[in-house]
Amino acid sequence: VDVFLPKGTRDFLPSQLQHRLAVIDTIRRVFQLHGFAPLDTPAFERLETLTGRYGEDEKLIFRILERGAGGQRGETDLALRYDLTVPLARVVAMHPELKLPFRRSHIAPVWRADRPAKGRFREFLQCDCDIVGSAEATADSECLAVAAAALEAVGLSAFEARLNDRRILRGIAQVAGAPDREAELLVAIDKLDKIGHSGVDAELAERGVGPDARQAIWALLDVPASEGDEAVLDHLLGLLAGYPDAQAGVERVRQVRDLALAYGLRPDQLRVDPTLARGLGYYTGPVFEFSALGGGIGSIAGGGRYDDLIGFFSGRVVPAVGVSLGLERILTLLESDEAGLPTVDVLVTVLDEARRPACLDAARRLRAGGVRTELWLGVGQLGKQLKHAAALQARFAVLIGGNEARDGVWLIRDLRDGTQQALPPEAAIAHLRRASAG
Amino acid sequence: VDVFLPKGTRDFLPSQLQHRLAVIDTIRRVFQLHGFAPLDTPAFERLETLTGRYGEDEKLIFRILERGAGGQRGETDLALRYDLTVPLARVVAMHPELKLPFRRSHIAPVWRADRPAKGRFREFLQCDCDIVGSAEATADSECLAVAAAALEAVGLSAFEARLNDRRILRGIAQVAGAPDREAELLVAIDKLDKIGHSGVDAELAERGVGPDARQAIWALLDVPASEGDEAVLDHLLGLLAGYPDAQAGVERVRQVRDLALAYGLRPDQLRVDPTLARGLGYYTGPVFEFSALGGGIGSIAGGGRYDDLIGFFSGRVVPAVGVSLGLERILTLLESDEAGLPTVDVLVTVLDEARRPACLDAARRLRAGGVRTELWLGVGQLGKQLKHAAALQARFAVLIGGNEARDGVWLIRDLRDGTQQALPPEAAIAHLRRASAG
Repeated sequence: VDVFLPKGTRDFLPSQLQHRLAVIDTIRRVFQLHGFAPLDTPAFERLETLTGRYGEDEKLIFRILERGAGGQRGETDLALRYDLTVPLARVVAMHPELKLPFRRSHIAPVWRADRPAKGRFREFLQCDCDIVGSAEATADSECLAVAAAALEAVGLSAFEARLNDRRILRGIAQVAGAPDREAELLVAIDKLDKIGHSGVDAELAERGVGPDARQAIWALLDVPASEGDEAVLDHLLGLLAGYPDAQAGVERVRQVRDLALAYGLRPDQLRVDPTLARGLGYYTGPVFEFSALGGGIGSIAGGGRYDDLIGFFSGRVVPAVGVSLGLERILTLLESDEAGLPTVDVLVTVLDEARRPACLDAARRLRAGGVRTELWLGVGQLGKQLKHAAALQARFAVLIGGNEARDGVWLIRDLRDGTQQALPPEAAIAHLRRASAG
Repeated sequence: VDVFLPKGTRDFLPSQLQHRLAVIDTIRRVFQLHGFAPLDTPAFERLETLTGRYGEDEKLIFRILERGAGGQRGETDLALRYDLTVPLARVVAMHPELKLPFRRSHIAPVWRADRPAKGRFREFLQCDCDIVGSAEATADSECLAVAAAALEAVGLSAFEARLNDRRILRGIAQVAGAPDREAELLVAIDKLDKIGHSGVDAELAERGVGPDARQAIWALLDVPASEGDEAVLDHLLGLLAGYPDAQAGVERVRQVRDLALAYGLRPDQLRVDPTLARGLGYYTGPVFEFSALGGGIGSIAGGGRYDDLIGFFSGRVVPAVGVSLGLERILTLLESDEAGLPTVDVLVTVLDEARRPACLDAARRLRAGGVRTELWLGVGQLGKQLKHAAALQARFAVLIGGNEARDGVWLIRDLRDGTQQALPPEAAIAHLRRASAG
């Protein structure tokens, strides 16, 4: 039988998975320390919960065939979740008893039928924190703070977060005289990082934005970052006179930035960037994005405020803000050339049938003592058993022969240097636990 | 908009999920201590990997619509995994470089379009340990040992494990003169627990098993357990003379039992039961099943040897044995009437705008110190903030007013008794960490 993985998916073998799980556990812990309690929802949602939420991307949703007669006609009623935000909105709508503000974290896979590419998968983990039910700027800054803390905790402290407000971008569209073509302008402006001033200008012209409008746009966007965030914000505030919504966006960016700095983000880690758009259509206020310095790997975390999405499901206005860590990219940055991490500490060898019960008992005691222990399942040649231990990257082997059984000790062999010592079981367990935890 | 969960699925809100995650973490740790390293595979497999593996149950597989033109014709090419064993077999086939014996654990959701009922869900977690590539009886006893250790670790030590061998059941079918109707006989015998001797006898008669054959079957099955496992095994060995395969099954059960006892399973926790069938068709040797004493809740763990499944994918004979914990039933048994567990330890209150930066800094320091901390996002009335803290089941509130700011202390209020103490930040963090961990 020919066997394959589905396109765009991955298996994680134990030695690879160890590192991945350690990073996830660190992030989970940071989320919980910040008061974002874990939520879990099903892998699939009813199709009508997901449709209409993702615009163009709707064709990327994996649909599940109905069971029974409908399925025979090719009808679908469920779909794999595309993100963790719509499930959150559904949960909030279904549970009016939840105390607001409701902070939740959710680390779980999502599925998108995207064209697979380097670093782009059809199944990947999302790591989200959201605060539902608060319009305060502190909520936005908490999202910045938890993302920064998580990145630092996994060892990625060389990052820069860029900050903007969706209303500033809308103001730019208004200044350009094209308020109804905001989305199109965003698509062009979003490419500034990649194709530069002249590339974006050409694209804007192509989309029918006239020279005067383009000049007005560039007056807003071309603010030298070297002048500092305060100068950028003052500049925007002046040029956006007459657009009170956009000005409110400028002031909110100023607040969120000041609060984030009070949280201990360094000024060089945070920058106001009026060109930051972010793809998703549902943002309504501040948006932000973290990049690794010197990376070229793109965004490693991002989020923003979306005050309309929850209301769509719950029928009441519920402001919300969230942040999502890009785990796959973070893991790429952290990846080392080393072989995978070992999954066991000790192999208990079995040298002859008569000693097997003593070996089983040794394995039981080591495991109860917190030492990751593999037992040789057969019996026989020590060389073969030690080779297996080496393949497992186990650091120690435990040998129990006739002499050891008689003396009530275990022989502990350190496989790194071949040294051996005979220890009574209690001392051996304590020694192996200490040496393995290191 | 009307919003619903998909039928047969569940959301886990934070306070419920805390307990569930703690139980899962305990099980994960026991698996790893026993040398079963974690593996992860995608939620869906190619349809042809899954079809033909589950017999009748194949209609319970959730199928995923093809993307593009095929999907418009209702064609499917992927399916959600139905268990974790077939994905394991695929991984072993795709990775001939894996060192055997390969022990892996896998704790992950599976999906079955079963009719939802009390305790039966369409999405549920499986917790599996398997050893691939060993025919040794020690491998079977390791699976018994890891399941027993996991049940004890989560607090379920009142269990009984029943042990049988698929070859004994085949022998019984042969004794009954119906070797080609083994599956049918198993279905009947499997109900002995529920419908008793007379019920099973009637069903066997209905299925055309004659009186002599039924008498032969009952001679094998009606062994008083009170005589002890050795007597049961000797009895079977005698009656199965002439069926060497069945006799090998009896001897293997004896070996696995002796090894499991050497692991520290108590004799009252383990019983040979020649009527134990287990549903799945792919078992070839020893099978076992754990039940909670006094439960009536059915099996809480089970497994067995399946020496043919891996070979189907890999084209080489690879023996394998595994065990699966019934997490949902285990959680039902552990469920208490208490309210959910708290998800935060401390609420940092914000009493006025001027003090907000000090409060943000306090939250940052508490979190860095390992205390799960929620920050009040707005500003204002203490009463409202303390009410929120109570709703969160947070045990402490931190108050920083003008006096505290002047004296360089935080006021710590214990919400259980209303007592307060002013402490310097370092001492406050240490105190809160100690009190919260308890």
